[in-house]
Amino acid sequence: MNLLAALRALLSDLRREKREKYQRHVSVGDLLTDRWEIAREYGFGEGTSCYDNVLILGSVTVGRHCWIGPNVVLDGSGGLSIGDHVDISAGAQIYSHDTLRRVRSGGVDPIDYAPTRIGSRVYIGPQTVIQKGVVIGDDVVIGAMSFVNTDITAGTKVCGAPARPEPDHLTAHR
Amino acid sequence: MNLLAALRALLSDLRREKREKYQRHVSVGDLLTDRWEIAREYGFGEGTSCYDNVLILGSVTVGRHCWIGPNVVLDGSGGLSIGDHVDISAGAQIYSHDTLRRVRSGGVDPIDYAPTRIGSRVYIGPQTVIQKGVVIGDDVVIGAMSFVNTDITAGTKVCGAPARPEPDHLTAHR
Amino acid sequence: MNLLAALRALLSDLRREKREKYQRHVSVGDLLTDRWEIAREYGFGEGTSCYDNVLILGSVTVGRHCWIGPNVVLDGSGGLSIGDHVDISAGAQIYSHDTLRRVRSGGVDPIDYAPTRIGSRVYIGPQTVIQKGVVIGDDVVIGAMSFVNTDITAGTKVCGAPARPEPDHLTAHR
Repeated sequence: MNLLAALRALLSDLRREKREKYQRHVSVGDLLTDRWEIAREYGFGEGTSCYDNVLILGSVTVGRHCWIGPNVVLDGSGGLSIGDHVDISAGAQIYSHDTLRRVRSGGVDPIDYAPTRIGSRVYIGPQTVIQKGVVIGDDVVIGAMSFVNTDITAGTKVCGAPARPEPDHLTAHR
Repeated sequence: MNLLAALRALLSDLRREKREKYQRHVSVGDLLTDRWEIAREYGFGEGTSCYDNVLILGSVTVGRHCWIGPNVVLDGSGGLSIGDHVDISAGAQIYSHDTLRRVRSGGVDPIDYAPTRIGSRVYIGPQTVIQKGVVIGDDVVIGAMSFVNTDITAGTKVCGAPARPEPDHLTAHR
Repeated sequence: MNLLAALRALLSDLRREKREKYQRHVSVGDLLTDRWEIAREYGFGEGTSCYDNVLILGSVTVGRHCWIGPNVVLDGSGGLSIGDHVDISAGAQIYSHDTLRRVRSGGVDPIDYAPTRIGSRVYIGPQTVIQKGVVIGDDVVIGAMSFVNTDITAGTKVCGAPARPEPDHLTAHR
């Protein structure tokens, strides 16, 4: 059997096992790797898991019992620290650099960096983007599809683009 | 030839075939799998396709002639049903659970679940997030980057975060 | 050693190399491919790179020194051209077709196409969606999570959904 046929047969078996044992479908990358092992390799805390296609750049520290979903970006090129019991929902992107000046100068100006810090017991909703240099306190809820470009005080709930203290919509269905 | 070199040569061949025959580029995962086969394995209806890196969780039913794009999340952990002729654009995420209470309690409180239902002939725009427990009727258009946290009546067009009946912007270019 | 064990050992080695040499984590697809090689294969300009899971459809031209991040969609099914020194941030999606009419008609009406053009020195923020038929001039900044559904004049900065000339939030941290 050639390599392509062997790979396709293997992946089909792994999908069937995932479906029958866990009622799930995950990407080829996640079939071939282990979420807890990836988190351990990068020095993240006990009980933290990290999907295969998470892009990790530079210096990123993550505490215990965090869930890091698919399509997440953890950019520690300017430094990024994340506490315990943080859920980083699918598609969320957390930055510590941006390339605006470099792009606008046609590649002449440098990249800008600033460290980003996130506390413990923070919920980061799906698709949310956190700008470089932001500090987020403990016990914060950031709603889905928020764009966070200012520091967030501990104990608050924010949503929107740009993210502001929430009116009521996150709780509408709860 | 070692495994890495053999894999890279195989993937290069598969990319060339995809480019020359279909004028496309897809991920390694999509080169090694088949979108229609994945949909069939999960019991989705005739004519439905599903990209490799779609995350499917729990009980998800999908009807016929649906298109499920890359980077989509179909969360049926609380139950999810989707009708016929539904386009789920790239990056859309449909939930039937959330972990807000669990995160806020530092892992003590449970996950919350509620079933989500989507009708037929529904267009779900790119990056849109649909909250757990939402019911969406037939013949609905949900614009790009919407956050849907309330039920949507059949035959309506909504957009925004949170999604509301649309003013005019979706039609600006049509 | 069987194929699965051999693959897992290989991927573990590649991850370790990526971590130790570049302080990074990338997907299995990106471990097995090269971002600059993918860009060259698709005829993109010198110095341009393109992550493995970028979905490219139809006729797409890209200039020199562009950065094309993960989870990006470049849809040239209706024609797409992109200039030099353009950063397409993670999760951005650029379209030249949509399926709204097809979905609403239950598959009877055709797909709609319109060519999309993007100039040089353009920054496209994370998660941003650009609708079919839009023309974006040179020296434009499009903020994170924008939905661009109208033409954008050269030299301007826009953000929001729909994207409009920006108030101040992009610069809040700079």
